[in-house]
Amino acid sequence: MSREFDKNMRQLVSEIAANYRQNSILSEYDSSNLADKVEIIEILQELRQLIFPGFFDRKKLSNSTIEYYIGDLLISIEEKLHRQVKCALLHKSHINNEYSDTYLEEQTNEICLKFFKMLPKIQEYITTDVQATYDGDPAAGDIEQIIFSYPGIFAVSIYRIAHELYKLSVPYIPRIMTEYAHNETGIDIHSGAQIGKYFFIDHGTGVVIGETCIIGENVKIYQGVTLGALSTRGGQNLQGVKRHPTIEDNVTIYSGASILGGDTVIGKNTVIGGNAFITKSVPDYTTVSVKNPELKFKNSKPKEFEQEFILDWVI
Amino acid sequence: MSREFDKNMRQLVSEIAANYRQNSILSEYDSSNLADKVEIIEILQELRQLIFPGFFDRKKLSNSTIEYYIGDLLISIEEKLHRQVKCALLHKSHINNEYSDTYLEEQTNEICLKFFKMLPKIQEYITTDVQATYDGDPAAGDIEQIIFSYPGIFAVSIYRIAHELYKLSVPYIPRIMTEYAHNETGIDIHSGAQIGKYFFIDHGTGVVIGETCIIGENVKIYQGVTLGALSTRGGQNLQGVKRHPTIEDNVTIYSGASILGGDTVIGKNTVIGGNAFITKSVPDYTTVSVKNPELKFKNSKPKEFEQEFILDWVI
Amino acid sequence: MSREFDKNMRQLVSEIAANYRQNSILSEYDSSNLADKVEIIEILQELRQLIFPGFFDRKKLSNSTIEYYIGDLLISIEEKLHRQVKCALLHKSHINNEYSDTYLEEQTNEICLKFFKMLPKIQEYITTDVQATYDGDPAAGDIEQIIFSYPGIFAVSIYRIAHELYKLSVPYIPRIMTEYAHNETGIDIHSGAQIGKYFFIDHGTGVVIGETCIIGENVKIYQGVTLGALSTRGGQNLQGVKRHPTIEDNVTIYSGASILGGDTVIGKNTVIGGNAFITKSVPDYTTVSVKNPELKFKNSKPKEFEQEFILDWVI
Repeated sequence: MSREFDKNMRQLVSEIAANYRQNSILSEYDSSNLADKVEIIEILQELRQLIFPGFFDRKKLSNSTIEYYIGDLLISIEEKLHRQVKCALLHKSHINNEYSDTYLEEQTNEICLKFFKMLPKIQEYITTDVQATYDGDPAAGDIEQIIFSYPGIFAVSIYRIAHELYKLSVPYIPRIMTEYAHNETGIDIHSGAQIGKYFFIDHGTGVVIGETCIIGENVKIYQGVTLGALSTRGGQNLQGVKRHPTIEDNVTIYSGASILGGDTVIGKNTVIGGNAFITKSVPDYTTVSVKNPELKFKNSKPKEFEQEFILDWVI
Repeated sequence: MSREFDKNMRQLVSEIAANYRQNSILSEYDSSNLADKVEIIEILQELRQLIFPGFFDRKKLSNSTIEYYIGDLLISIEEKLHRQVKCALLHKSHINNEYSDTYLEEQTNEICLKFFKMLPKIQEYITTDVQATYDGDPAAGDIEQIIFSYPGIFAVSIYRIAHELYKLSVPYIPRIMTEYAHNETGIDIHSGAQIGKYFFIDHGTGVVIGETCIIGENVKIYQGVTLGALSTRGGQNLQGVKRHPTIEDNVTIYSGASILGGDTVIGKNTVIGGNAFITKSVPDYTTVSVKNPELKFKNSKPKEFEQEFILDWVI
Repeated sequence: MSREFDKNMRQLVSEIAANYRQNSILSEYDSSNLADKVEIIEILQELRQLIFPGFFDRKKLSNSTIEYYIGDLLISIEEKLHRQVKCALLHKSHINNEYSDTYLEEQTNEICLKFFKMLPKIQEYITTDVQATYDGDPAAGDIEQIIFSYPGIFAVSIYRIAHELYKLSVPYIPRIMTEYAHNETGIDIHSGAQIGKYFFIDHGTGVVIGETCIIGENVKIYQGVTLGALSTRGGQNLQGVKRHPTIEDNVTIYSGASILGGDTVIGKNTVIGGNAFITKSVPDYTTVSVKNPELKFKNSKPKEFEQEFILDWVI
């Protein structure tokens, strides 16, 4: 450490401490009960091992031992999830003695139990997503490839897990889960969205699916699709209001399309073309395509390309 | 564990086991031969050390010892790649005794040998990509910066490695490699695409390059560009068909443009403007720009901005 | 290792060594002074612990011990930053004996001191960004959620740190920092951009903010927004020129919009609609919306959907 740094350090420490004290965002520095992201990611990894047996842990499983495999994983997941849910409830209630430990323990047990009861259904839904991906992608090759490396399946699986916790009003954890998937895949699905079976996201980077979306079965969407709100100027006043669209069964939405607004309904069996910008409902069995903006073509003689700066062309 | 969870556990285990048995996607739970993602990423890291000596391992290398450096890395990469390729072939063939171990060993040796013979060419191509990035980006500063931190170079390097394995018909591994790059950079290049020298991707998030694309030399593309298929409703029936465009030499494609279809050819020295949506061929030496959708301007008096909700403006 | 590989290895080693020697990009293989990405990420993590006390280290802090917490972190960060800055300066100057160690040490001390003096201001700015995010997002729930899991805050925090190092002309490190954020979030903010307080990026995947952007206070932008250059054909010749737009106070820019060019100024209190493509200045208090490209609607009778190939619809 340089002498100058040493001399300035006391000053720096006080300034930062003053920031902590003056700023309400920073002042509550007892975060010992905040959720632990690392353990939440471990829970997701073990759930993935449970849902797709043998794919992510390289164990050789057999019919006669499979119950032990499931049991072991369930015990490990339950222990971690119980700890994280209790932490989250404790932190959210900002309590010390407001709720008794017994009360929190009961709440946590109830949430965990309800979540685990949903696991077979979560698994069933995710296998339909894998099937839809295989059916929809000529480059897929085989099912293993999809489970093992497709970002769409990764993000949708995590969304399906987080969604059950969201429905149980668990604070923090659903968002941490879906932001982990967002981080890994560029696919941002809010845990509050409702999504039916056989959901397929191809490529996926840039996809945004808002909190109050309702999506039917057999829906297929591509990279860069936004299912969003019309305007969020209302900020916190809009909490809970349906701000995002409804997409009915068998709809396909091509890349870059935006569908906005809580009253917008895309009817069954409809196809939305790439880059379409839609703020009103579309009836069933419709193909919506964008009449593309006119393109201008300018032929350039080769010699013009020898100039170093070609700044005059209008993008 | 709560008593309730304990009581429900037996039931839960049977339900999940039943899911495994009933669902063909989950039923083949001998995945002990599945490729190991962690080791595949290690192979990529060591290949990067080999291609850019000293950049990623902080070793001090000298002219007289450089052969040992190369030799050590090659031996380590070969050992890992051999294991992974054999695993992938074994898993793909779903065999136990169908093919002899000798046969698989021979196939694996042949693939590895052919791959390693291509390494100097892969390295040469990647250095042209670095050069193209330097030449094209005013913010680049220097070559080290590009090798060390540009996502475009990261994704293209991994694509070039994966593409050679794809050409040798190695299952699983090429996709795992390119999805790793997709995950790290948001750039999704299918290992089947054919891409010439001096390729430059700037920023890159959201770029999608499909399996049957053919891209010439000196091509430059920006974030959000899709080189995709016109429609993939055909699903698995379209496997192998040329579904993605051909981009000839010296083409620049600006951000957000989509070029779609297997018969679409973008001729030499052509410039495609931002957000263009192109489904037909474009001749050589053309500048294509989008006649932008008309913009509407509405002046708002300052006081209107004091209202909390401004929901009436049409996006 | 197979016998064939063994036989070919000598040949392969020479070819790769020849590539190193012939190619100027690869020839300078003394990279022992290159910046260490892992340690730079550790610096960022410790700075985050300092800025948001207790959030990322799960320590129970109290008013009476908080100074020790700050002091400990500062010492640890200073040690690492000092090492990395000195490395970067040494590598940039390509020296052996050109500058004395004393000179480099002095430069490094000065840079570190200036950087640390800016820390309280960096912290203050980042808390305004958290506030803006809370105010702007109906799905936010609470402040903890934002600090803990929002990618926009992650990327903007790292940008604010990197920007101070950029202003001090530190080579390599600012870019490594912002590319780390880009990698984690899909948000690509160049460390050279100038950004005012209360900055809010929602969702964020695909956002690109160029080196010479100037952004005022209270600006809000959505996923897929590009603040870019009009054309970068000039390559290295454009280094240092203002190529990216100016965005004044209280501007909102919706998803997918592109604003391009160094002379483009978006005036105060203006709203830019989704997907707008803007290359000219817009006055204060304006709402710019795209008159959307005409949509074509085609009704399809249900039976047509039974055909396996629907290739004829125009996207």
